[in-house]
Amino acid sequence: MSMIVLGTVALDTVRTPFGLRKDILGGSAVHFSMAARLFTSVNIVAIVGEDFPGRHISFLKAKGLNLDSLIVDRGKTFRWEGEYKGDLNSALTLNTQLGVLSAFRPVISRQQKGVKNIFLANVDPDIQDYLLRKMRSPWLVGLDSMNYWINTKRKELFKLLKRVDIYVANDQEARVLSGENDLIKSAKALRGRGAKMVLIKKGEHGVLFCGDRFIFALPAFPVEKVVDPTGAGDTFAGGFMGYLARSGRINPAVVKKALAYGTVAASFNIEGFGLERTRKLVPRDLNTRMNRFKDCFIF
Amino acid sequence: MSMIVLGTVALDTVRTPFGLRKDILGGSAVHFSMAARLFTSVNIVAIVGEDFPGRHISFLKAKGLNLDSLIVDRGKTFRWEGEYKGDLNSALTLNTQLGVLSAFRPVISRQQKGVKNIFLANVDPDIQDYLLRKMRSPWLVGLDSMNYWINTKRKELFKLLKRVDIYVANDQEARVLSGENDLIKSAKALRGRGAKMVLIKKGEHGVLFCGDRFIFALPAFPVEKVVDPTGAGDTFAGGFMGYLARSGRINPAVVKKALAYGTVAASFNIEGFGLERTRKLVPRDLNTRMNRFKDCFIF
Repeated sequence: MSMIVLGTVALDTVRTPFGLRKDILGGSAVHFSMAARLFTSVNIVAIVGEDFPGRHISFLKAKGLNLDSLIVDRGKTFRWEGEYKGDLNSALTLNTQLGVLSAFRPVISRQQKGVKNIFLANVDPDIQDYLLRKMRSPWLVGLDSMNYWINTKRKELFKLLKRVDIYVANDQEARVLSGENDLIKSAKALRGRGAKMVLIKKGEHGVLFCGDRFIFALPAFPVEKVVDPTGAGDTFAGGFMGYLARSGRINPAVVKKALAYGTVAASFNIEGFGLERTRKLVPRDLNTRMNRFKDCFIF
Repeated sequence: MSMIVLGTVALDTVRTPFGLRKDILGGSAVHFSMAARLFTSVNIVAIVGEDFPGRHISFLKAKGLNLDSLIVDRGKTFRWEGEYKGDLNSALTLNTQLGVLSAFRPVISRQQKGVKNIFLANVDPDIQDYLLRKMRSPWLVGLDSMNYWINTKRKELFKLLKRVDIYVANDQEARVLSGENDLIKSAKALRGRGAKMVLIKKGEHGVLFCGDRFIFALPAFPVEKVVDPTGAGDTFAGGFMGYLARSGRINPAVVKKALAYGTVAASFNIEGFGLERTRKLVPRDLNTRMNRFKDCFIF
């Protein structure tokens, strides 16, 4: 089954101990797609400004992504500037320029309204809600957010939670939204709010998944040289949702495999700046690393 | 193969959100033994004071532990008092009374000198060194320490590292001793210092193992109600070293299984205060949970 991802297409400026990259292609929808495209056809719903380099459009098309609903609007593309220090576990946001994102209102085609797999990456919950209402027959809806919205649009987020299958959050977000310190309790509280499944991303510590009758934990794939973690969470979500969309069913075995694919996809993402590593990914790369990952757990 | 553990036998006073326990049996050697005993026969090398309750001696004996080298000295038993708040991930030490531990000098029997598996739990590195020198033919030596010794006896610890097979540390200790922030780099740096294998315990985030040609990561076993984490690291080490001692060989498959047993053993420990949960453990409990843990990774 094909998939729609609502999110950002951005120009990122990133500094890590390994260097500096200016205005590189990034954004949640892009990172998500780099992994999801390996499993299913992906429609990007996003907005960029007129300054958005045409080569990025060509690149995304060449990767097989459907850009029918990528609006090119008058104004500037969303820009994010951040820095990672020390153990590269958390980004320091230096600057954010919303540009055209501040007036974003998704427009999708009639055909796209029938897509059954939907990932609402981190944008204003009102925009997430707006898109979700357009979808005719969602089969699987994933939702991501961030502390900014958790703090400013809590009510809207809680309303959305009731309509999503999988809420994806990092550990801090899950704690803040649930009010629970312990992550398992936190995941359960968020399930109590309506999300059928909750997936907590813990960065270098892997993920915790909490569903109806099962809780799974997976470590991160051990990467020796972390160059730039930007987009790791979205890449994870892309691999995870992409695999579920391709499978077309949800059960413990499928969920575990999806978690593992997400984990492995994210491990590639952090090995290079921006898309340096994931732009070249082919399914075989994923599967090779998947086998190494699996081997960790043969005991 | 049987095993020797050098460490503390203590009286702990612990407060967690779930309650308060005063002067309960604890200490690194005790927690270690509760798990290791399920795999092999264990000799405890430690010291207690005259105030140490006889019922604890009877209990440890009833668990099959060899107490020939548990010195009962004039003075007070080592006492630790701590509190856990919030997510229970780190203890706040409220009080430490060394008592007889301050003059501890291990004495072991001729027979014990021939034991091939040795775990040097967290005590003064000089005492660890002293015991290790007495051992005739070590096959597997594990070493644990803590920030206090890392800061005050760094040189001695580095000397010891050259003679150990497995250095076991929590994430903070590994960072402080290695000077590396990233945990994989940290583990590699400590291997560079001589430890053949490095095992980093990350509490609720599981463990990272770094050997000659392999790196493994395992998540913690997801426990829904963490009551008291005291001794979880030692219980982990007990399950891990115990399984290795019983296997009598070191290879990736054995190491992975040992890591999983350690993980599962620790998950029981945190479900109750002190030994409430682990004192009743039988191999079947471990194996039942081991199967559930394994199931997380069948994908």
